[in-house]
Amino acid sequence: MLAVDAVNKSNSGHPGLPMGCAPMGYALWDKFLRHNPNNPQWFNRDRFVLSAGHGCMLLYALLHLTGYDSVTIEDIKQFRQWGARTPGHPETFETPGVEVTAGPLGAGISNAVGLAIAEAHLAAKFNKPDTKIVDHYTYVIMGDGCNQEGVSSEACSLAGHLKLGKLIALYDDNQITIDGRTEVSFTEDVLKRYESYGWHIQHVPDGNTDVNAIAKAIESAKRVTDKPSIIKITTTIGYGSPNKSDTAGVHGAPLGEDEANLTRKQLEWAYDPFVIPQEAYDHYRQAINRGAQLEEDWNELLTIYRNKYPKESAEFERMLRGELPNGWDKDLPSYSSDEKGLATRKHSQICLGALGPNLPELIGGSADLTHSNYTDIKGETGSFQAETPEKRYLHFGVREHAMAAILNGIAYHNSGLIPYGGTFLVFADYMRGSMRLSALSELGVIYVLTHDSIGVGEDGPTHQPVETIPSLRAIPNMLVFRPGDGNETSGAYKVAIENRKRPSALCLSRQGMPNQASSSIDKVAMGGYVLEDCEGTPELIFIGTGSELDLCVQASKQLSSAGHKIRVISMPCVELFEEQSESYKEEVLPSSIRKRIVVEAAESFGWHKYIGLDGDSVTMNSFGASAPGGTCMEKFGFTLENVLAKAKTLLNSP
Amino acid sequence: MLAVDAVNKSNSGHPGLPMGCAPMGYALWDKFLRHNPNNPQWFNRDRFVLSAGHGCMLLYALLHLTGYDSVTIEDIKQFRQWGARTPGHPETFETPGVEVTAGPLGAGISNAVGLAIAEAHLAAKFNKPDTKIVDHYTYVIMGDGCNQEGVSSEACSLAGHLKLGKLIALYDDNQITIDGRTEVSFTEDVLKRYESYGWHIQHVPDGNTDVNAIAKAIESAKRVTDKPSIIKITTTIGYGSPNKSDTAGVHGAPLGEDEANLTRKQLEWAYDPFVIPQEAYDHYRQAINRGAQLEEDWNELLTIYRNKYPKESAEFERMLRGELPNGWDKDLPSYSSDEKGLATRKHSQICLGALGPNLPELIGGSADLTHSNYTDIKGETGSFQAETPEKRYLHFGVREHAMAAILNGIAYHNSGLIPYGGTFLVFADYMRGSMRLSALSELGVIYVLTHDSIGVGEDGPTHQPVETIPSLRAIPNMLVFRPGDGNETSGAYKVAIENRKRPSALCLSRQGMPNQASSSIDKVAMGGYVLEDCEGTPELIFIGTGSELDLCVQASKQLSSAGHKIRVISMPCVELFEEQSESYKEEVLPSSIRKRIVVEAAESFGWHKYIGLDGDSVTMNSFGASAPGGTCMEKFGFTLENVLAKAKTLLNSP
Repeated sequence: MLAVDAVNKSNSGHPGLPMGCAPMGYALWDKFLRHNPNNPQWFNRDRFVLSAGHGCMLLYALLHLTGYDSVTIEDIKQFRQWGARTPGHPETFETPGVEVTAGPLGAGISNAVGLAIAEAHLAAKFNKPDTKIVDHYTYVIMGDGCNQEGVSSEACSLAGHLKLGKLIALYDDNQITIDGRTEVSFTEDVLKRYESYGWHIQHVPDGNTDVNAIAKAIESAKRVTDKPSIIKITTTIGYGSPNKSDTAGVHGAPLGEDEANLTRKQLEWAYDPFVIPQEAYDHYRQAINRGAQLEEDWNELLTIYRNKYPKESAEFERMLRGELPNGWDKDLPSYSSDEKGLATRKHSQICLGALGPNLPELIGGSADLTHSNYTDIKGETGSFQAETPEKRYLHFGVREHAMAAILNGIAYHNSGLIPYGGTFLVFADYMRGSMRLSALSELGVIYVLTHDSIGVGEDGPTHQPVETIPSLRAIPNMLVFRPGDGNETSGAYKVAIENRKRPSALCLSRQGMPNQASSSIDKVAMGGYVLEDCEGTPELIFIGTGSELDLCVQASKQLSSAGHKIRVISMPCVELFEEQSESYKEEVLPSSIRKRIVVEAAESFGWHKYIGLDGDSVTMNSFGASAPGGTCMEKFGFTLENVLAKAKTLLNSP
Repeated sequence: MLAVDAVNKSNSGHPGLPMGCAPMGYALWDKFLRHNPNNPQWFNRDRFVLSAGHGCMLLYALLHLTGYDSVTIEDIKQFRQWGARTPGHPETFETPGVEVTAGPLGAGISNAVGLAIAEAHLAAKFNKPDTKIVDHYTYVIMGDGCNQEGVSSEACSLAGHLKLGKLIALYDDNQITIDGRTEVSFTEDVLKRYESYGWHIQHVPDGNTDVNAIAKAIESAKRVTDKPSIIKITTTIGYGSPNKSDTAGVHGAPLGEDEANLTRKQLEWAYDPFVIPQEAYDHYRQAINRGAQLEEDWNELLTIYRNKYPKESAEFERMLRGELPNGWDKDLPSYSSDEKGLATRKHSQICLGALGPNLPELIGGSADLTHSNYTDIKGETGSFQAETPEKRYLHFGVREHAMAAILNGIAYHNSGLIPYGGTFLVFADYMRGSMRLSALSELGVIYVLTHDSIGVGEDGPTHQPVETIPSLRAIPNMLVFRPGDGNETSGAYKVAIENRKRPSALCLSRQGMPNQASSSIDKVAMGGYVLEDCEGTPELIFIGTGSELDLCVQASKQLSSAGHKIRVISMPCVELFEEQSESYKEEVLPSSIRKRIVVEAAESFGWHKYIGLDGDSVTMNSFGASAPGGTCMEKFGFTLENVLAKAKTLLNSP
């Protein structure tokens, strides 16, 4: 009824799911969920994910009823209003107690796979036979929409493969989607599909009233420890509404006052809007004492652990505090220009090898491109599998979108793990939905995106990013790096690791490039910096990134020896440059100097912020072609000759 | 062996799949595929999709062997070289005979669902009991990677629902992906999963040599007319290579000369590289006469059809010619400023209703947001279902990515159908992989993307696009429209329908906006045009789109009455404006006038191309928030007050 009332009051929202799922919400939260309402961040709590995020009033109601400060009855009355802690979809950054930001369907269940991986990994890493300090379940409520989205198929197939026994999904089988009955588009046998993934399956035919059956099914699911579980719970959307239940109309629109009253009558609910009987509070809020006791017991266990296993506990507690270990970056390599240039994907591999031993919380892998992305950690063998969850390398399979959602899930676990994942840059498109959520939810996921331009070569335009870098730069709160050599790759990793509240996308080359004489690990943190300079005021400024940085340096050399005053700015991260002080930006890129040329083997889109109406660029605004990478670079104009020609034209202009 | 040789010669490519799939390729192309090598565009051919596009040498070999002009032995020797018709992944626009551009895994099988939908629809629409002029199969070869990608899960679930009996997929079960054996990440029971979707399933255990078993399975699949079929064919990747077969090493790297020789020995292949025995040509190229006969038979059938059913045949043949019907746009509405403004999603619905009766080839739907996207065609009932394939409304379910891939498939069918599909703009991210392929493959798909800004309101930042419009504008060959009223919405449809060689993304508002006095249907084709102007040279130019266009007009009015000279440019499609003549662009946006302000409720990213270093914008560079749409607009600065303030600052600047 809180959902009915809140949606009516805001005149906007989704009452149908909360009405149909109230029994499973009650069963799960009252009888199973181990959590502490007074400390939503208690580490060893069970994680609850409302994957069908539009039904967020169910979650807000449960948070409120069980006594979370974060959702008062006033917050519920402010449902979906400016500044409220009860936004229209659950957002971790707005509401303590919300474990994942959900709304884009399929994301939550896929995040939950990440949460379960994080738990399994930490349990295997830290637990001792006598002290299990990491031990919780991950529960999910998901709907038909979640089950139709491909990302959930990917993630749940992997979850079955990994035998994540502590992942339990309650599937709200209400047979209604926005277009009407699921029979218009969705008639597959969902449980059979999950069985094919290796999940344990159950069905509760009456989810509207049979709380006992739901509870028994959850108990059974908990007993199956070598498989994730899905419980299909057949419900009626909008259950209790005499005229709107079991229709698409109750999915995402208010019942209205009249129907709300009829619903009260049908459900024999004698209370006014937003009124909760004390009896209900008294019952639900037993969770407060229970939760306090759970945390106290765990704290005692942690004390024992601390005493018996001081080294392990020091690492564990450091991670929970979100602190990086001392010297984590000490082995990040630096380079002089004498050293042979490598592909930045190769530099990235060296960085991962340098970070691995010093940064045990680094965990990640690749979407089946390990030996192309070079995402392995040197010296380590084996991967996270059902039998070896202590390993930190993840084979995601050819499942980019699930990879990103799972990385988000690992970050949402908030236990200090630093998740990274690799694929080809062009396939960032496949996982963009979840990359956006990394940015929105302030998750320090590191995306290792190799093969970053037409330099990819023979694989051709389906594999050659052209617009991908600009489109990633457009995402708020995302750091997009395109390092220009070994030092800048080290610098990019340094910043990415330090940024635990925003994601980083490392765009890395397939092909080699020289190490620059003046490149800097530390200056990457400024986003852009003067790499090569002239005496006095420059006539022209080159701005370069990645594999084209060296073209700028070469062109600058030639023009300088012809007497021109040229500056080269390396711009490995536009977003960080934007954040610098106005004086720094003015110093690097004086507003009076309008002869500016950007060189980047990508779309020019976005670069006019720096080149304005008077500058120029060596970029490309078409798709690439299948040919050796060097040929592509040449044919699309990324040559010294072309850079020089454009520079001379600009130098000769008024 | 052609694959081995071509990959060796180019020193780049994927020999493993062609070697393992040669038997199924042979069985399918020699015994089943109805095609005409001398006319790759013969309409009634079976469609063959190599979803595992990296194995393209299999396809090029089959095209060459069966006698297509498009792939000569010289083309094969030029595999993956600049300008060759044999690019590193199959591309429709490079090689006649290639039905879909594949490479990004999962795309091809999902396109195939679209091809099968197109066939089923046209068959139901045009066939008569005595003359079946539309009657072909869609065959696919797919690999483990395709089966791991979520997009294929979405599409194949829908294919099962729709009982697409003429879709037959051969699944190359070679148990190898790039990271090694599939056992590291992919151990689900694939056939059981397809069975859960409603597919007919079979298994051929020896795909390396048992051509008869493959042929029998295809025959069985053809006999099952009420279900799509998948045949799991167990093969050995790189079959025939004594040292590299059954390893990830043979997936994407040349065998090298030595191993190629050993392979020749093992397979008892006595011919030099690129040499095909005449006996093989003679056998394969029976396809030429067979194909000519098939087309001749079909032409005869078409003659009969033309005589018996002149009306139907006129429409059918017009569609095949790619001609739009006379008067297709005659009912597109125009508006005066007196008429009440609507949301552009509502204008879009009116356009679809106006186009529907005059444009029978329009076919589309929504990813389960019909009543939010307003993608229905007024006056039509029912949808494309197994029992009603003659209907043209598609319920895609909550499957955005599959929707886009299926729309691409319908376009690839190249039979005049004009596919469109709707979802929320923010969920373009979910289908971006396939939207990119629409652009790359020159497919005139129309994306109807509603809820185009923070104007979405209460659903909050997960549902509010901010960076989505810029990120779509970054895609080459994609038209991105953001119409500012009713006329511009009609204009956007007009251009989108006419553009059969590039996709259009219509970004449409949830909320209402006024009709402008000077807006124009026809001027949308110019991309940008002067909507309101002053006498003489403007001091300041506003550039507006969509729901913010009216803010520009209002601000202009106020400033004009205060004596300023102001121009307002409406810019519904940046890409089209860019394509106009330099003189037109200069006329609309004189380069000397640098006081320019863009107003658009989205990221500023990309707009500096017009505002340069001296202009300004009323845009936003953060995510939105959950609150009523009007509140969001106000809080994020999309107010007349703010627009005026920025304008005045600019007007007062030197």
